[in-house]
Amino acid sequence: MHVTSERRLDDGVLEREFTLGEIPGTLWTPESATSESATPAPLILMAHNNGLPKSEPRLVARARRTAAYGYAVASIDAAGCGDRPRSAAAEQARADLRRAMRAGEPVDEIFESFVGPLVENAVPEWRTALDALLALPELAGPVGYSGWTAVGIRLAAVEPRIAAAGLFAGGYVPRAQRAEARQVTVPLLLLLQWDDEGNPRQRALDLFDAFGSKEKTLHANLGGHTGTPWFELEDGNRFFDRHLR
Amino acid sequence: MHVTSERRLDDGVLEREFTLGEIPGTLWTPESATSESATPAPLILMAHNNGLPKSEPRLVARARRTAAYGYAVASIDAAGCGDRPRSAAAEQARADLRRAMRAGEPVDEIFESFVGPLVENAVPEWRTALDALLALPELAGPVGYSGWTAVGIRLAAVEPRIAAAGLFAGGYVPRAQRAEARQVTVPLLLLLQWDDEGNPRQRALDLFDAFGSKEKTLHANLGGHTGTPWFELEDGNRFFDRHLR
Repeated sequence: MHVTSERRLDDGVLEREFTLGEIPGTLWTPESATSESATPAPLILMAHNNGLPKSEPRLVARARRTAAYGYAVASIDAAGCGDRPRSAAAEQARADLRRAMRAGEPVDEIFESFVGPLVENAVPEWRTALDALLALPELAGPVGYSGWTAVGIRLAAVEPRIAAAGLFAGGYVPRAQRAEARQVTVPLLLLLQWDDEGNPRQRALDLFDAFGSKEKTLHANLGGHTGTPWFELEDGNRFFDRHLR
Repeated sequence: MHVTSERRLDDGVLEREFTLGEIPGTLWTPESATSESATPAPLILMAHNNGLPKSEPRLVARARRTAAYGYAVASIDAAGCGDRPRSAAAEQARADLRRAMRAGEPVDEIFESFVGPLVENAVPEWRTALDALLALPELAGPVGYSGWTAVGIRLAAVEPRIAAAGLFAGGYVPRAQRAEARQVTVPLLLLLQWDDEGNPRQRALDLFDAFGSKEKTLHANLGGHTGTPWFELEDGNRFFDRHLR
């Protein structure tokens, strides 16, 4: 893990850009988390749906606020996303997917052929990042996951260090992860925007029903995909407090 | 309003039994709420589904914890319930309703003929209680409502002093209140037990969808009717903090 830049933000949060082989990542740590700290900060892995870049302003704002609250937060770019080399084929598939969703056309096939492999390939990279991050003395397990539902399902199903997961949306999820949902047994908080134009509500409710976890909570709020109310960030922090502290 | 008994609980909460004409009630107030207090406690009206008695242990525990947190909480018995005179006809209807629900039989007709009038008659009594309670110097508006969904809908629709409502279950609600739901515009927190044997899930989701409120949140947790996790009480307190403080 190679730190390429770091800066201290106004609220004391330390923001470090890093690379791990080909994988670019960002780590936000609270002021209290230093290598000399007696109480290392629990780590939350935060990913954005469909491989949006880790520099996406909503993701960055959420990560910083969560770090200011007291968690270490890490994000990496998926292959072909953010700061990583793009392929013309992936860019085309992404454009097709956006156009089809906007037009209200069926997107399951593009989802299987494009998002399916993106998820499959992202999960080993998150595990590699997890190994490197937990080697830092200022970070500790148990580890939480927050964000992109499909990656969260696969990661929670295969990675025993994930102790709790907050998942967003979940209307469109590749078939493999819909099937894997019943293998997920960690405590879950599923966050759903009731009028999310890009996430069929009934599918998200069916997914919530399918999870194998004994402790699972659904929070649904009125409004579209980007309209999640601010208090859900606080609810998410308290969810992690119950399972990571 | 005539106080018939009062006692100070371990956590400083003052518990007062009162009567208001024929209506028996209980008022729990936090230690900080005195008649000399510079900051009166906001009031939450708390009712139990289907007119369960105000002395029901789960209701009492919830009321006391909410009062210890800092709210004044009041509950009254509906006609024919709790400490009020019973009628043989109402007792029979209640027994029929329980038997039918347990057997998984349709209950809509018993609901209309028995619970419908119970709700219609309860709401004017809650408004009378509200008048009397807000005359106490240690209590203040805006007022919250928590509990029995059907009464909450009607009260929120007709009583402008209700500023926010936390509603529980909502699978079975009389037709009149299902229709009234779109007239409710105050912020709402709807709490649903995902496997509530006595509350059809889809009806509760349809009711959430029907409310006219611009700010409405659904919390669903795994488990049956009485299995609501303890952290939902804290979430409810924070919901009221956002709207009553």
